[in-house]
Amino acid sequence: VVLTNADVDHVAGLLSLREGQPFRLIALPPVHASVRASAIFEVLAPEVVERSIVGPGERIEAAGLAIELFPVPGKAPLYQEGPDLRIGGETGETTGVLVTHDGRQLAYVPGCAQLSPSVLDRIAEADVLLFDGTLFTDDEMIAAGVGSKTGRRMGHIPISGPEGSLATLRQLKAARKIYIHINNTNPVLVEGSPERRVVEAAGFEVAHDGMEIAL
Amino acid sequence: VVLTNADVDHVAGLLSLREGQPFRLIALPPVHASVRASAIFEVLAPEVVERSIVGPGERIEAAGLAIELFPVPGKAPLYQEGPDLRIGGETGETTGVLVTHDGRQLAYVPGCAQLSPSVLDRIAEADVLLFDGTLFTDDEMIAAGVGSKTGRRMGHIPISGPEGSLATLRQLKAARKIYIHINNTNPVLVEGSPERRVVEAAGFEVAHDGMEIAL
Repeated sequence: VVLTNADVDHVAGLLSLREGQPFRLIALPPVHASVRASAIFEVLAPEVVERSIVGPGERIEAAGLAIELFPVPGKAPLYQEGPDLRIGGETGETTGVLVTHDGRQLAYVPGCAQLSPSVLDRIAEADVLLFDGTLFTDDEMIAAGVGSKTGRRMGHIPISGPEGSLATLRQLKAARKIYIHINNTNPVLVEGSPERRVVEAAGFEVAHDGMEIAL
Repeated sequence: VVLTNADVDHVAGLLSLREGQPFRLIALPPVHASVRASAIFEVLAPEVVERSIVGPGERIEAAGLAIELFPVPGKAPLYQEGPDLRIGGETGETTGVLVTHDGRQLAYVPGCAQLSPSVLDRIAEADVLLFDGTLFTDDEMIAAGVGSKTGRRMGHIPISGPEGSLATLRQLKAARKIYIHINNTNPVLVEGSPERRVVEAAGFEVAHDGMEIAL
């Protein structure tokens, strides 16, 4: 199990693997620290669950793949946001993963507040790119009346706009570019919608349940 | 939301109600303390989730019902078991609930290590009893090769045997007695099994998904 951050949608599933299921839990130190801050994750008994604490850019082997975690602009998990919250720091609280096998590379970046030079450098050579597609427009949750936060406040760069992810990522060489981590307000989920056609015309796919990726 | 203990199967669902869903979280102090020991539950923002800390036997009103929590023999949540673990104490870490409406009473006791005099006293007048049916026999998980713990070690009295729950509870006057919190090794789940016939012959029902109870 590789954790790219410690927010609920990334770690709650660990509670379904509890008690006796052996696995390695691979993450950077800040993510492990957030997991440790919740007593409930002690159900992952040390006899069966190895906490694999890796450094940024450190390459490790897992399940026959080379795995490398790298910090991306992000923030602390929602439940640990404090009065001094900073959004967009590359602190290791939010990370991407490079998975390499047989010279082929996949980049997995489910949350990213900004396409900083360091992020672009890390994903530049990926053959397959899975990237944060949480929102299409930064204020779409506010516009839909389902929330009070912008995407940027939540640590997610929007897809659209001159500063959005699509304008930058379409220039990358990856053979497959796939939006993932898509919020239910995002119109790219609707097949045939204008927004879906925009991302597809730019060469992007929209992830779906059960999607399988051959690297 | 009423919590009878803070084990994973009782509290993990709170993570699906997070961020913006208003409700009251009702529990005894030890259960609230266990929830507080996990930073992840801070997603239950204080602006929308009221922590309702009640005392043992204190009667409160919720959703038009009178609610009363009472300690039963139990133990700390698995993730907080320490070297000095004690099983069977009535410490408030494991509780039952009495729900009263229009003079009719329902008792809900999903985990109980022993039918102590105080428990029997609290559930004696219930019209409907929902009771811990985790295991049929104390060592059934060991026998099935799926675990190393007895039911008693997990804080659950077995259904069968002279010291089991069936022998004692069949004497109660409740019009409906329903086994709940049933482990997947428990043969009462199998319709027509000898064990199912034993509990049915004693006037017990076996709970099922979607069961509705009119009090």
